[in-house]
Amino acid sequence: MRKIAVLGSTGSIGTQTLDVISRNPEAYEVVALAAGTNAELLLTQAHAFRPKLVSIASEEAAARLRGELPEGTRLLIGEEGLTEAAAGCGADYVVCALVGAVGLRSTLAAIDAGAAIGLANKETLVTAGHIVTKRAGEKGVPLLPIDSEHSAIFQCLNGEDGRAVKRLLITASGGSFRDRTREQLVHVTVEDALKHPNWSMGAKITIDSATMVNKGLEVIEAHWLFGLPYEQIDVVLHPESIVHSMVEFSDTSVIAQLGNPDMRVPIQYALTYPQRRPSPASPLDLVKAGALHFREMDFVRYPCLRMAYEAGRAGGTATTAFNAANEAAVGRFLRGEIPFLAIESIIESVLGKHDAITNPDLETILGTDDWARREALK
Amino acid sequence: MRKIAVLGSTGSIGTQTLDVISRNPEAYEVVALAAGTNAELLLTQAHAFRPKLVSIASEEAAARLRGELPEGTRLLIGEEGLTEAAAGCGADYVVCALVGAVGLRSTLAAIDAGAAIGLANKETLVTAGHIVTKRAGEKGVPLLPIDSEHSAIFQCLNGEDGRAVKRLLITASGGSFRDRTREQLVHVTVEDALKHPNWSMGAKITIDSATMVNKGLEVIEAHWLFGLPYEQIDVVLHPESIVHSMVEFSDTSVIAQLGNPDMRVPIQYALTYPQRRPSPASPLDLVKAGALHFREMDFVRYPCLRMAYEAGRAGGTATTAFNAANEAAVGRFLRGEIPFLAIESIIESVLGKHDAITNPDLETILGTDDWARREALK
Repeated sequence: MRKIAVLGSTGSIGTQTLDVISRNPEAYEVVALAAGTNAELLLTQAHAFRPKLVSIASEEAAARLRGELPEGTRLLIGEEGLTEAAAGCGADYVVCALVGAVGLRSTLAAIDAGAAIGLANKETLVTAGHIVTKRAGEKGVPLLPIDSEHSAIFQCLNGEDGRAVKRLLITASGGSFRDRTREQLVHVTVEDALKHPNWSMGAKITIDSATMVNKGLEVIEAHWLFGLPYEQIDVVLHPESIVHSMVEFSDTSVIAQLGNPDMRVPIQYALTYPQRRPSPASPLDLVKAGALHFREMDFVRYPCLRMAYEAGRAGGTATTAFNAANEAAVGRFLRGEIPFLAIESIIESVLGKHDAITNPDLETILGTDDWARREALK
Repeated sequence: MRKIAVLGSTGSIGTQTLDVISRNPEAYEVVALAAGTNAELLLTQAHAFRPKLVSIASEEAAARLRGELPEGTRLLIGEEGLTEAAAGCGADYVVCALVGAVGLRSTLAAIDAGAAIGLANKETLVTAGHIVTKRAGEKGVPLLPIDSEHSAIFQCLNGEDGRAVKRLLITASGGSFRDRTREQLVHVTVEDALKHPNWSMGAKITIDSATMVNKGLEVIEAHWLFGLPYEQIDVVLHPESIVHSMVEFSDTSVIAQLGNPDMRVPIQYALTYPQRRPSPASPLDLVKAGALHFREMDFVRYPCLRMAYEAGRAGGTATTAFNAANEAAVGRFLRGEIPFLAIESIIESVLGKHDAITNPDLETILGTDDWARREALK
């Protein structure tokens, strides 16, 4: 029986992870749950799964849990709680589903504890890919991708020799504004931006889909996960979100992974790999889908993706600055402080002021992260 | 260095096999070539590859080779030559690219000699799948598919647990008459039928594409190659011939293999498996393709596919009769003796008269093959 800790248990990936786990109760024991602010849902989850530990981000949220938790479930708060959930509860598998750069320390703690990592938090690799992949390699800890695109690539690489990979082809739906011109983006609202055509996801990632920042983060994540240079990672627009991504090999064969958009499939695969199990997702009906379309990525229409590639090629702290500037800018957009197109101009401005530091250590990364956020909030 | 025998070297698959081999001269030595009637081309090939043996189907054709072959190249004729090419020249890899049931005995001889088999001759498995797969299993000889659809499935199964396979999804272009109604098929000519929209292939297989017999043979071949019941093998119409086939797994993930239609890719993969090598095929450009379409297979429009499934489910000699009746009927169509739609009515009539014999031995199979051909010629 696998002992699982879920970091970010009340978010979109976290709740779907627990859904997958609850369908296979004989295979998994939940030993720790960590959440941000949703105390109500964390409490429900604690009673359903009876973990050894729950952790919540703030003292204020923790106050709502005291005295309400099941017997035997400890309560911790903030960074300390995250680290204890990741590395102090005997978990042999940690699902890292926190949103943003906050997931970094706890992921490293889980790796140091020797747990396998189910990685849904792409910012971890984006901000500190060289540290995380190196540490995982040294510990012999597998990093199992949960993002649908990276899971697809991971599946397409099954049984293949990595040296025969010519390029990765990451698909992009185009997000909620894919049918609008840049001119039509000037006055879009938060509500408009949150309507993703194919996937039901959290608010931050849905905005990141609309700006194509999300695809940029995925490109950088793919660079670290699969060890390929940016020249071998391409993005293609695919509005149906049925082909989740592809790998082209040296013999021109392309292997693709397809399915209806349902995150429980990649979540489950990260848990059951190398096995597969029946999933609650509905089977793909290609006849019903009728057609799969592919269009060239437009770096003028989506400048954030261009900036992501530039940051990735610059390396070092450039991707940290890219990610932190975006996180802060998206926060401002969601709070109604700035218009949609200001997200990209803020990122561009922060990157313009940043001199990337090569091969940064964790303190330097966190310093850059902090600086970029402050710049983005100016 | 791999020692290769190519059975059917002057046909479409044979010539492309030699093209692949000639691009990797350090990896392969051609030890035997066997052809049907094209003495001119066989002679050219013999001088290019200097095999130990060439074999040709008839004494008449052999007469054109005598005295013209390079020093050290023996000449044999007919079934004896085929068997010697397959099993008597030290080949450790035999490409079986003969068209029709004639490939059966030599394939079995190659298996008995312990050679790996690159299988392009689908009739071998269609007429005697239980014998060939059993013999290969006993000898520990791999059967490597060369057909693009089976190569695709084989690639999609890479690194996967066969027990997690839910179904195979074989794609069908629809052949040269896919945009015509059954009424419009009454007066089509041989010339019309030979115009395949996507693939450049031999005459027999091009007609089999138009009748959908080819897809039926592929379904039966897939049943034997991948050990799945017919209920788990589906066919979907895909006019672009870019997705070469797919596998659906228990978790609803679908893995697909894509590429431009170029037989050198699956031929090369069968030779280099489990490795991949750079191929002369042009890389797939999905943006240029624009869209991939999928339509439901129509068993009324394509009754030959329905009959193939029925023969497959009946088992035993039923698939032998199906294949032999079709071979004879296609021969008659190509000679201008019968109209296009008579192919299917001949197959239906022969199958209607045939009482399938379960678990037949080789003599019974050859007897059924002979009987079905004679019936089809009536």
